[in-house]
Amino acid sequence: MVRVMAHITTSVEYGIHCLLFLVGNDKAMSSRDLAELQGISPSFLAKIFPKLEKAGIVAASEGVRGGYRLAREPDEISFLDIVDAIEGRKPLFDCQEVRGRCAVFGEAKPKWATAGICGIHAAMIRAERAMRDSLASVTLASIASDFGKVAPASFFEDVGGWMGDRLSGRTARMPRPDKAAPP
Amino acid sequence: MVRVMAHITTSVEYGIHCLLFLVGNDKAMSSRDLAELQGISPSFLAKIFPKLEKAGIVAASEGVRGGYRLAREPDEISFLDIVDAIEGRKPLFDCQEVRGRCAVFGEAKPKWATAGICGIHAAMIRAERAMRDSLASVTLASIASDFGKVAPASFFEDVGGWMGDRLSGRTARMPRPDKAAPP
Repeated sequence: MVRVMAHITTSVEYGIHCLLFLVGNDKAMSSRDLAELQGISPSFLAKIFPKLEKAGIVAASEGVRGGYRLAREPDEISFLDIVDAIEGRKPLFDCQEVRGRCAVFGEAKPKWATAGICGIHAAMIRAERAMRDSLASVTLASIASDFGKVAPASFFEDVGGWMGDRLSGRTARMPRPDKAAPP
Repeated sequence: MVRVMAHITTSVEYGIHCLLFLVGNDKAMSSRDLAELQGISPSFLAKIFPKLEKAGIVAASEGVRGGYRLAREPDEISFLDIVDAIEGRKPLFDCQEVRGRCAVFGEAKPKWATAGICGIHAAMIRAERAMRDSLASVTLASIASDFGKVAPASFFEDVGGWMGDRLSGRTARMPRPDKAAPP
């Protein structure tokens, strides 16, 4: 069976799950650490975060304590922002302008036949707009808030501990200045 | 560049354009004639109409004057009916249940972590429902009525003439009973 890729892909799903770990988090996290925390492929996630950065959803910092932070407040990052950042503005429907190809037109296509937007295309655009409006109404903040009502406090402590261990491990692995290779 | 197939595909676009020629049409039309009238690939359309028949949108009749007719009133055939008939119920988003894979869970995944539906998936389902509700609100009748305000009467006469020529051509090509091959 051929598995058809869904319109909103796994890249978006992975991106949102990892972005949620940055809500209310003052530490910058590498995409590798975020991927391992979420149990997904680091190489896959490494392709997603640069797109989120380009869209102004996350900001990257360099250095041993560098990584990604949210670039805006979580209530100003909608699912639509994330979908568009990761997928690009791919349309729900790709109109081929079939209406101009009717056999009775012959060589001289009448102007009325292709004036304005095709009624079928217009209906598809309305459906797409309804979908996009719905995605725009959900933010990282609203999902994080709902999640906070379900997850116990111990979960957030465990995640904080896991992140702390990662960050101190990174510092520990840092070469000492006197042993560092020349730049 | 890889061209990604849109969620609502060209099959739906072709299907709707050809179905519109069956609105208010008392003649049965073959999918070959409909394809040629619309200027699209007959072999492509021949794969679409059996799906529309299976979904109860068109009814097929056999014989030299056979072909497809609408099986319901055009105001009872929505774009959603047509999309589902042709594409199947393919989801907008295919949840991979990523939430259960958090590194801090270890071997013992807590029940709260995978209880109910994931908040991200729920938001995608709401967006899909908004899209589907919009598609359900458009019917073949409403699009045909809008089109009727744009197209001149001569267009419908031309189409009627084209169909009549096709149907009489089919009858003319029919072998005479005394020369017919045995069944």
